[in-house]
Amino acid sequence: MNGAQALIRTLAGCGVEVCFANPGTSEMHLVAALDAVPQMRGVLCLSEGAVTGAADGYGRMTGRPAAALLHLGPGLGNGLANLHNARRAATPLLTLVGDHATYHKRLDAPLESDIDSLARPVSVWVRRSLRAADVAADAADAVAAACAPPGGVATLILPADVSWTEGGEPALPLRPRPPSPVADEVAGSAAKALRTGQPCVILLGGTGMRRPALQAASRIAAATGARLIGEMFPARHERGAGIPAVERLAYLAEFAEQQLAGTRHLILAGARSPVSFFAYPGKPGSLVPEGCQVQVLAGPGDDIDAALVSLADLVACGIAPTAQPAARPALPAGDLTPQTAAAVIGALLPEGAIVSDEAVTSGLFLPAATAGAPAHDWLTLTGGAIGQGLPLAIGAAIACPQRPVIALEADGSAMYTISALWTHAREGLDITTVIFSNRRYAILAMELDRVGAVAGEAARSLLDLSRPPLDFTALAAGMGVPASRAATAEEFAARLGKALAEPGPHLIEALIA
Amino acid sequence: MNGAQALIRTLAGCGVEVCFANPGTSEMHLVAALDAVPQMRGVLCLSEGAVTGAADGYGRMTGRPAAALLHLGPGLGNGLANLHNARRAATPLLTLVGDHATYHKRLDAPLESDIDSLARPVSVWVRRSLRAADVAADAADAVAAACAPPGGVATLILPADVSWTEGGEPALPLRPRPPSPVADEVAGSAAKALRTGQPCVILLGGTGMRRPALQAASRIAAATGARLIGEMFPARHERGAGIPAVERLAYLAEFAEQQLAGTRHLILAGARSPVSFFAYPGKPGSLVPEGCQVQVLAGPGDDIDAALVSLADLVACGIAPTAQPAARPALPAGDLTPQTAAAVIGALLPEGAIVSDEAVTSGLFLPAATAGAPAHDWLTLTGGAIGQGLPLAIGAAIACPQRPVIALEADGSAMYTISALWTHAREGLDITTVIFSNRRYAILAMELDRVGAVAGEAARSLLDLSRPPLDFTALAAGMGVPASRAATAEEFAARLGKALAEPGPHLIEALIA
Repeated sequence: MNGAQALIRTLAGCGVEVCFANPGTSEMHLVAALDAVPQMRGVLCLSEGAVTGAADGYGRMTGRPAAALLHLGPGLGNGLANLHNARRAATPLLTLVGDHATYHKRLDAPLESDIDSLARPVSVWVRRSLRAADVAADAADAVAAACAPPGGVATLILPADVSWTEGGEPALPLRPRPPSPVADEVAGSAAKALRTGQPCVILLGGTGMRRPALQAASRIAAATGARLIGEMFPARHERGAGIPAVERLAYLAEFAEQQLAGTRHLILAGARSPVSFFAYPGKPGSLVPEGCQVQVLAGPGDDIDAALVSLADLVACGIAPTAQPAARPALPAGDLTPQTAAAVIGALLPEGAIVSDEAVTSGLFLPAATAGAPAHDWLTLTGGAIGQGLPLAIGAAIACPQRPVIALEADGSAMYTISALWTHAREGLDITTVIFSNRRYAILAMELDRVGAVAGEAARSLLDLSRPPLDFTALAAGMGVPASRAATAEEFAARLGKALAEPGPHLIEALIA
Repeated sequence: MNGAQALIRTLAGCGVEVCFANPGTSEMHLVAALDAVPQMRGVLCLSEGAVTGAADGYGRMTGRPAAALLHLGPGLGNGLANLHNARRAATPLLTLVGDHATYHKRLDAPLESDIDSLARPVSVWVRRSLRAADVAADAADAVAAACAPPGGVATLILPADVSWTEGGEPALPLRPRPPSPVADEVAGSAAKALRTGQPCVILLGGTGMRRPALQAASRIAAATGARLIGEMFPARHERGAGIPAVERLAYLAEFAEQQLAGTRHLILAGARSPVSFFAYPGKPGSLVPEGCQVQVLAGPGDDIDAALVSLADLVACGIAPTAQPAARPALPAGDLTPQTAAAVIGALLPEGAIVSDEAVTSGLFLPAATAGAPAHDWLTLTGGAIGQGLPLAIGAAIACPQRPVIALEADGSAMYTISALWTHAREGLDITTVIFSNRRYAILAMELDRVGAVAGEAARSLLDLSRPPLDFTALAAGMGVPASRAATAEEFAARLGKALAEPGPHLIEALIA
């Protein structure tokens, strides 16, 4: 068999079952190989940002890598922003980048570029296959690298002739590397801090935001009075009724400082030491309060669950976790605002929903409004590279076909990867997209003031999306997604209820006052 | 004044008059500085591919750089594909990438990434400003680097605190470096080849595809019998009635081989030695025929015009150039096919039009159909990174507000940067977009066979854009661009004639049989 077939067979054997793709000529043998390997599902996206974002969503929900098939350096370039988010999410993800044939490289043809250099900043592992006989083993190595805890982007570069040359043989999967155990003395040191009686915060991140870890952390909090805070932008936060609640660190540094004020011991469990999202003139970048001691209970590649359970067994023997009680806001009436829109979502969020949250400023009230909704997953914008939300929803929906997916999108953010809607329709995915349409880059209008810039008309006009207004119902219709518009809270509730009740994709443009 | 103001003032003083932008928090002071410098026009695009493609189009038409303002590594990533095209076009272009404050870098905040590494593969020049006092001089250096013949992408990375800190002072422009002169013996050597009587081809590229060079080349061809061939994908080809005609090297290697068959002397004037766009199993990558001697009359950074004039004076004294006679196809009737669509465009192309050509397979018949149309500029997909056409049209329209711009787009290609249509509408640009809608990645269906891949249903479905069909009239309407659809040659002629007669943007979805 040729290299491409050996590659795809190897990936299927390693548990890679989905290939999100935007292929070109150099990848045609890889595409052709999909026919020979029915275990691998090819999913076409119309731009590479959708491909990589979808692979991120899939990896977040399954813990297994999807492949993201891209065309040469420019295809990788287009996919980099969502690979950046995947890197920050520590998502296992396998990027396959086609390249010119090995003997064609030196000719510097128009599409020639330095793929390797572009891949490195987002990848934990980069390799270029050079022979058909090697490509299967390279693929197995790539999957192992992507899956090494906590997970990461592995990039395999595939020259066209390596794909089309005969002499490939499938390779066996490598044994996955488990997360690193946390030494007893580390848990002991954290226990000591918790027993001081001084204000303690456990900052949770990575798998620390998932149910098993949250239950252990909740026991610790109940026993010691330590506060639990979640990292600012978790890859996947399991939350809602029945799961221990944890507030997330605020995006606005001034609020985050308040959350952490007075803390004497900061225990990191899967989270990194907290920093301000951006720098602001005259403000500190680190969010660790003066005089607060930081200790790492578990780093991102460590066994976070086991570390928290060990710590709980030390300080909270016999103490039960505290579950979030079920509670929903009442359906609101009147103007559609970020507040009332959040209340509608909280009132209607279905059991088992997966929320892809890129609502930006319009999402400020969502965490509180949905805290007591039926158990669900909340996926956030881990790397701050906008254009994640619609693609991420693709991957989540393909990973979990029985669960409803809700993409909450700002209008500005939606436009970076709007073509993802076409894949929502093509694959018949059960995704309800809500576009919070405030017709401006509202976050930049806020940040303009916060960084101390004095802006006049020319500057403000660069933050304005109202001339002409974007009509998201037309955009959705143009890509085969049924769409409607809501201008009041009642309309929004009616449209959202209907969309959630019907299978398949829908889009609601929420005109936010 | 702060660094941002010093930067923008310096750029304006260097002749940079337009800043295409998709800014974020780190660039707010740069945005604010636009108000203080009315000579700098800010143009908002909704995604970075539109920003960089627009800057490319502007640079191709003016010979002066526009600024492309991007937000950190992910913003640069999204803009890389069109920067790749700009690099291949040798377009003078200034990329401004905001970054975290210098003191914030080490905290590895969520948006932190290795911007410098991402910039290098597409840039002739990369620098990171480190002090407000230096940024203006850095900007002047950047413009000089972008303008150094033949032109290129210069990337200046701007930490937020460098922008907001006081202590900047505008810097003076640097004297532009002229193209390198071509030595007399080089022209003499080419003359010797032309006088052998053996089959000679002059391969024109870069400014060699513009009127002055074409006139000199035409004299040489008339005097010596040498054939003129243009590079495969020129940045800007001046053509049409009154301008010496030159056929371009074919994309399909088998056709290109036929064009060059029998050539004994290949004289490069601004073009690179010809190579196949992609590699194909068992086919050579270089398109230079066996036994053909290649010589460089003028490289891309050389004075191509002067070299051709010198050569013409040696071998074609007293000979006049041959102008393309005016000729248009008749308006066709019946089915709308790539042939009849091309005839309609040839029949109606206005005087002075600028064509942004990303029609891919649907564009095969365009060169012949438009060869004798009134004089116009033809901008091609220089680097093969699709998603160029709609953004390039923005830049061309802003560069040449008195000229009609026509974007010829394949449906697949259009979707990578479809949000560019919003900027067409927002700026009221006189751009007529034609979407050749064949509802598939037709070029890949062709390439699948050409690379020898045997594809079944799963593979073919990844090249299919028909489920659901894209409705480009709805997409255009969603972004404020008036749109219509044509299913016959007559309808297409009527819609195109109307769109060309009205100012402002229009889109026509041409349903290609």
